[in-house]
Amino acid sequence: MNSAFFSELLNSIADKGRQLLKRGEGNGAAPTAGSIIELCRALLSGRGEASGTALAAEVLNRYPLLDDTGKLAFFKALGTDFGPDQARLAKAVIAWQKNPDQDASTKLHFESEPRRQDLFRRLNRAPGGTAALVAMRADLLNIKDKDPALAAVDQDFAHLLSSWFNRGFLVLRRIDWSTPAIVLEKIIRYEAVHAIRDWEDLRRRIDPIDRRCYAFFHPALVDEPLIFVEVALSEAVPNAIAPLLAEARTPAPLSYARTATFYSISNCQRGLDGVSFGNFLIKQVVEELRRELPKLERFVTLSPVPGFMRWLAREREQLAPDEQAAAEALIQPDWAKDTEAAERLRPVVESLAAGYFLRAKGPKGRPVDPVARFHLGNGARLERINFLGDRSPRAMRDAGGLMVNYLYDLDDIEKNHEAFVNQGEVAASGSVRKLLKSEPRSRLQLTASSSN
Amino acid sequence: MNSAFFSELLNSIADKGRQLLKRGEGNGAAPTAGSIIELCRALLSGRGEASGTALAAEVLNRYPLLDDTGKLAFFKALGTDFGPDQARLAKAVIAWQKNPDQDASTKLHFESEPRRQDLFRRLNRAPGGTAALVAMRADLLNIKDKDPALAAVDQDFAHLLSSWFNRGFLVLRRIDWSTPAIVLEKIIRYEAVHAIRDWEDLRRRIDPIDRRCYAFFHPALVDEPLIFVEVALSEAVPNAIAPLLAEARTPAPLSYARTATFYSISNCQRGLDGVSFGNFLIKQVVEELRRELPKLERFVTLSPVPGFMRWLAREREQLAPDEQAAAEALIQPDWAKDTEAAERLRPVVESLAAGYFLRAKGPKGRPVDPVARFHLGNGARLERINFLGDRSPRAMRDAGGLMVNYLYDLDDIEKNHEAFVNQGEVAASGSVRKLLKSEPRSRLQLTASSSN
Amino acid sequence: MNSAFFSELLNSIADKGRQLLKRGEGNGAAPTAGSIIELCRALLSGRGEASGTALAAEVLNRYPLLDDTGKLAFFKALGTDFGPDQARLAKAVIAWQKNPDQDASTKLHFESEPRRQDLFRRLNRAPGGTAALVAMRADLLNIKDKDPALAAVDQDFAHLLSSWFNRGFLVLRRIDWSTPAIVLEKIIRYEAVHAIRDWEDLRRRIDPIDRRCYAFFHPALVDEPLIFVEVALSEAVPNAIAPLLAEARTPAPLSYARTATFYSISNCQRGLDGVSFGNFLIKQVVEELRRELPKLERFVTLSPVPGFMRWLAREREQLAPDEQAAAEALIQPDWAKDTEAAERLRPVVESLAAGYFLRAKGPKGRPVDPVARFHLGNGARLERINFLGDRSPRAMRDAGGLMVNYLYDLDDIEKNHEAFVNQGEVAASGSVRKLLKSEPRSRLQLTASSSN
Amino acid sequence: MNSAFFSELLNSIADKGRQLLKRGEGNGAAPTAGSIIELCRALLSGRGEASGTALAAEVLNRYPLLDDTGKLAFFKALGTDFGPDQARLAKAVIAWQKNPDQDASTKLHFESEPRRQDLFRRLNRAPGGTAALVAMRADLLNIKDKDPALAAVDQDFAHLLSSWFNRGFLVLRRIDWSTPAIVLEKIIRYEAVHAIRDWEDLRRRIDPIDRRCYAFFHPALVDEPLIFVEVALSEAVPNAIAPLLAEARTPAPLSYARTATFYSISNCQRGLDGVSFGNFLIKQVVEELRRELPKLERFVTLSPVPGFMRWLAREREQLAPDEQAAAEALIQPDWAKDTEAAERLRPVVESLAAGYFLRAKGPKGRPVDPVARFHLGNGARLERINFLGDRSPRAMRDAGGLMVNYLYDLDDIEKNHEAFVNQGEVAASGSVRKLLKSEPRSRLQLTASSSN
Repeated sequence: MNSAFFSELLNSIADKGRQLLKRGEGNGAAPTAGSIIELCRALLSGRGEASGTALAAEVLNRYPLLDDTGKLAFFKALGTDFGPDQARLAKAVIAWQKNPDQDASTKLHFESEPRRQDLFRRLNRAPGGTAALVAMRADLLNIKDKDPALAAVDQDFAHLLSSWFNRGFLVLRRIDWSTPAIVLEKIIRYEAVHAIRDWEDLRRRIDPIDRRCYAFFHPALVDEPLIFVEVALSEAVPNAIAPLLAEARTPAPLSYARTATFYSISNCQRGLDGVSFGNFLIKQVVEELRRELPKLERFVTLSPVPGFMRWLAREREQLAPDEQAAAEALIQPDWAKDTEAAERLRPVVESLAAGYFLRAKGPKGRPVDPVARFHLGNGARLERINFLGDRSPRAMRDAGGLMVNYLYDLDDIEKNHEAFVNQGEVAASGSVRKLLKSEPRSRLQLTASSSN
Repeated sequence: MNSAFFSELLNSIADKGRQLLKRGEGNGAAPTAGSIIELCRALLSGRGEASGTALAAEVLNRYPLLDDTGKLAFFKALGTDFGPDQARLAKAVIAWQKNPDQDASTKLHFESEPRRQDLFRRLNRAPGGTAALVAMRADLLNIKDKDPALAAVDQDFAHLLSSWFNRGFLVLRRIDWSTPAIVLEKIIRYEAVHAIRDWEDLRRRIDPIDRRCYAFFHPALVDEPLIFVEVALSEAVPNAIAPLLAEARTPAPLSYARTATFYSISNCQRGLDGVSFGNFLIKQVVEELRRELPKLERFVTLSPVPGFMRWLAREREQLAPDEQAAAEALIQPDWAKDTEAAERLRPVVESLAAGYFLRAKGPKGRPVDPVARFHLGNGARLERINFLGDRSPRAMRDAGGLMVNYLYDLDDIEKNHEAFVNQGEVAASGSVRKLLKSEPRSRLQLTASSSN
Repeated sequence: MNSAFFSELLNSIADKGRQLLKRGEGNGAAPTAGSIIELCRALLSGRGEASGTALAAEVLNRYPLLDDTGKLAFFKALGTDFGPDQARLAKAVIAWQKNPDQDASTKLHFESEPRRQDLFRRLNRAPGGTAALVAMRADLLNIKDKDPALAAVDQDFAHLLSSWFNRGFLVLRRIDWSTPAIVLEKIIRYEAVHAIRDWEDLRRRIDPIDRRCYAFFHPALVDEPLIFVEVALSEAVPNAIAPLLAEARTPAPLSYARTATFYSISNCQRGLDGVSFGNFLIKQVVEELRRELPKLERFVTLSPVPGFMRWLAREREQLAPDEQAAAEALIQPDWAKDTEAAERLRPVVESLAAGYFLRAKGPKGRPVDPVARFHLGNGARLERINFLGDRSPRAMRDAGGLMVNYLYDLDDIEKNHEAFVNQGEVAASGSVRKLLKSEPRSRLQLTASSSN
Repeated sequence: MNSAFFSELLNSIADKGRQLLKRGEGNGAAPTAGSIIELCRALLSGRGEASGTALAAEVLNRYPLLDDTGKLAFFKALGTDFGPDQARLAKAVIAWQKNPDQDASTKLHFESEPRRQDLFRRLNRAPGGTAALVAMRADLLNIKDKDPALAAVDQDFAHLLSSWFNRGFLVLRRIDWSTPAIVLEKIIRYEAVHAIRDWEDLRRRIDPIDRRCYAFFHPALVDEPLIFVEVALSEAVPNAIAPLLAEARTPAPLSYARTATFYSISNCQRGLDGVSFGNFLIKQVVEELRRELPKLERFVTLSPVPGFMRWLAREREQLAPDEQAAAEALIQPDWAKDTEAAERLRPVVESLAAGYFLRAKGPKGRPVDPVARFHLGNGARLERINFLGDRSPRAMRDAGGLMVNYLYDLDDIEKNHEAFVNQGEVAASGSVRKLLKSEPRSRLQLTASSSN
């Protein structure tokens, strides 16, 4: 039945070109995964080549009309039926075993390429193809776990998208109040760290003279930021987020700016998960700002500490008595409102935080904190721990109110990165290290327990 | 030694960042293939990751300073030392042989990927990386035959560039007198069919109201056309090139235009050899023109016949006596100046030309003529043979002065393409077919002789 | 004192250039009208010419720091001290009286030019000068009545601005969701007919496929619309505003659009009062839309009737009894909520409205309604009266809920315009004329009473 | 007759709008000055107002079809028939004489405005109106002397264009190899100082890293430069033009640049004669360059001395014997080829040149040299005299091979300008002044003779 449909379709193409394709599209019947897969086969067979990108457009137009079951069936078919040609692969394997030279292994590589990679490349030729493929992969990620065949499909997606969204193809653009609304609307929607409430809130982040926002774009995804970072310019390094985002705030004159603070960085495209942009973005923005404002001396972040409270709960048994008391205090509602009591907690909490960053390690010997792993992996240094840097409910719950600054010093990032990657060493400022000094006995055990 | 250099370099990076890289660059000693290969290794090792794109830029800055010997050595090293990890590949082969499922073949595919592909992707991150890689491949094509190891390198280049220059990433731009000079200069330089003598000649091709020029661009290659096509608008289908290019010519009012003639199409980037743009370009230009000028009825080419005279010489033994006489006449100097004699030749030459296109076949059963293979493969139809369509020395020598029109009829291109690809059938108009009617006996032999 | 200040200033310029100008600006003392006037004199004297636009910039930077008294003093000085040179004028008058030829009257014209016109032209040379002058005139309009000397100043402003904002210098731009936020923000702020509540409301006006918005811009006023019009595309002529602005609304496919409705037109720049843009804007938008959508058949407005209720109150004595009753009913709160009662009112109200437009005349024999005067003066025709077309509080209060459509038929606008300008004839459709047919006796008197 | 034509035309407008206007245009008969003048009257009468800009477009379309006689007739009619309304003017004169206050003189000003000014403003509303008016005035300048009535027309043109091309409306754009060919073509054509031979010559002026070119544009004259300046960047101040324009030349690295030399400045629009751009252009380019290249220390010109040889011939009688001998030598062909003889001439010629600039005065007490008047009037200083700075035939003939550098020192231009304008004082460097030191007796006479 699908096949009859498909025959009719291809005849249509041959007979009257794309007009009939469009008729097919509009004939009322919802498309099925099977019919789309047939189109994919036609696309790969090359039969439809001469009608240019019409077949590809047809696949991409129909796919979004599938319901969840349809999409699952579609991806499963991609996973099982669009692998490499096994016969040719077997031949290439034998040839390689006989003589494993460059030619044979190259041959092996090309013969083992799943045909869905070529399918994706052909689909990409249609107008809007890249955006459609990114959206398709976002769907796939949502249901990837439902079938073991989907992992291979995702690997091919990830491989291709990673190649196409190579940093060399990305364009940095400043986001400000002259940016088209169609882009700004997405900045509001995609902000993942400190939510943007409305257009006025947005304006406070991008329009004042001491604020900057930059995003990476890809030429094939018009009006769609891939990742963006929000920056505050100031004299000193900020130690809390609220003053940065305050409604009533006098912008600082640029002539005083010595510090650029990256206080929010958000990925925008679920379908590009695993393609890394953040490291490149931060470094290019540092370069942009240095060019524009040669007086800038420091590039830091003001970052959340999303894993601190969970870690504290998990490690509670290992803590010294005063630390246990502090951990207990941090989960009381409104504890921070009692300013004096809070001040008494400060040294213990700061010391615990230093331990959290410098000693606690996850399974691969890396810091427990995901934000720390990102910035330290980029070669940044843990610069300062900010007690009660963020009093928002989420931060109180996840981080006990903590924020931290990471410092990007271009002279040190290579060294820091190397030490982090090779020896798992965490670059930290003297003042952070000092917080560990008065080392309680319990901590040693803690380190031991978590260093696996 | 190289390795010492490399150590010092990496220390430099770690110690003082990119400044030292630049010192290395400027220290007087010309770079060697070996030193660049060391940088490539560092780039792949990930050691240099944190200094962002500096290492990649360094490789791309140094490579052009190599002389020919250096470049050959560089490519050979890429071919021999940057293949897949053979140990991991062997393991993947064994796993696949045990259980040749999707996962295993996917694994096999990724493990067999030559590391130079990843190297190219990392090099592409540097500013100007894409252009530098395209230029690098142009170099490679020039020396590819000098060493068997280079074929695999070129395959990897071709694979990546073909993916990156996917039609979905190309941008069509009209070329006219408002185009920046930096682009126009390249149109002059890259025109490969009917040479553009100077800026005035260029202007006659792109500025008059009845002329069009379109090019594909890639966002990462600013100011560099990839391929362009020149178009003349007129009422009737033109049968000769000279009137189109004449210096003194009154442009035709657009309201009379019924025919768009593609009279020149040129690829611009040697480094993108094998990535096909022409088919897509012609079809998108057809769409552009239909949108702008709904009264257009015909989209044709005015094309050269580059292989006719060579074929005629080769087949001379097979020709009938009058054909042999004609073939002899066509190689006399200035034969076309005797108008009457030329007119007497016309029927025989046209008939020979019809045979050349419709019957003579190359080794794969396709037409001998490369231009014919391109347009017929796109689904066009051979529409008309133009006796003495081009009297330029080159055309007289290669084509006996012949030109032809191919017709792009969107309703038929799919059907034509299928028949051409599957049955080797050449789509041709009735008038061209009729030229074969009065079939001399000799022709049968000719067909037989060339249909292998 | 001022003069001492001024001397020091000019010395500064001579000695150290603009640096000192800036010091002057920042030395804490608020500027005075007198000091700015001194700068103006210097600017006119040509003494400061060589330091380019620095003096002009200084005047424009200081002026906004004046308080209201200061501004009044500044404008009075412009009015009294920057007129023509009376001695030279007197000479030109005598020469003209002796021999009133072209040369003499030209001479008279140039000698009578107030020097403030030249001052304004010199001020305009500074960066941002045009915007500053437009803002200055907005200030002037606010206080024009406070001193008789200001009228002449305003005339000069109006003369120059009208010349500079000549339609030939204006640029039409479409406003949509791709427009920079900095412009959209002003669309929200300047909308004067149907207020735009927030960004979502704005989006409903400019983003859907069946909505358009166009504005005139001037190259020297970046990001500042001068006037804009909002357009709805639909099959039929709309008879009420609420459905057009509804939050939940399915946009109509463009293929059905036969009518373009201009439902809101707003001037943006108070400082450009008296420079007319509306006529030109509507006509160019008609041309744009016809080019884009050749199937459009009708260009109409959906317009308010701001003077209807006031006129009705004024004329009450003249009305027939049923009309008096209707007039009474229209001022009851919530009268429109009783649907049946409202329907009973409809014929009388429509007939009254027809009289309001076709018979009631203001002092110059033109219609009482200002919106009617604008559209009829442009050559439009009164096409339809829409009972309860706008149930917003303002429209109920001012227009008894009425709206009307004016029709722009390019074939008739010249004829309509001529008849309106020369004979005061109001172009109206047959259906509107018919509403007058069943003419109550009272109406004759009414016409008489208001035709002065 | 004309009037019948005109009636029919206006009826056409009223009846069928612009369609008929176009029919009129195409009916074969060449337009006459009279018919165009009738259209102008209609335009001013306001009758054609509602058909928008159609009438204006009609005038501007027809005008260029007039032959020279027609144009003269057209301008004469403008001069004689489009002055002010004499009756109203007379009334305003009387009122002013009675009470010469601000209101009366303002009234006088507006009533004396020639109606052709309003005509020009209305013509400007048509698409392309500004360009058409500028072209019209260029025509007028060519025949201005043929009739005394034309002077007034030109004054009105000059007045309006000067207001419309106010520096505040001009846009500075850099001209380089990325500039559209349609603009570059005009740079080639308009270059008036050192002719640009072809596109390669152009490229040498704008493309190398140590060359700059900037132009002023007006938003209403797209692709039409108004004035442009060519700049060379170098370490030292250049003393000859040939090395700057040499075909084979190695561009200097920007890091060495300390001097920016303006070596050519050309006005482009004959129709804008008398509207001064040069002063503004030079000063803004100085600012641009200082921003881009903070290390620049000197902004100079390398300028021709067009009046030197003519002056020398005129003053020959006044010269001392050695000077007379030098003057005689300078008119021998090829004198500069004898290097030694030339060197012997150098001191006398330099001394004569110093006298030419510092002592010789024209009728208004200003320097004889027009280029000197321009730069000195801008506040520049005569910095250096360059013996044999330009060996081109024109320069040898007009300037005896001399060139000079003028220095723009922003700290001094105000002072220089004032002294020049008020006391006729020529700012000159010490080294130029010193050339006068060894003052020959004859010079005193010379000064006396030319200081009237």
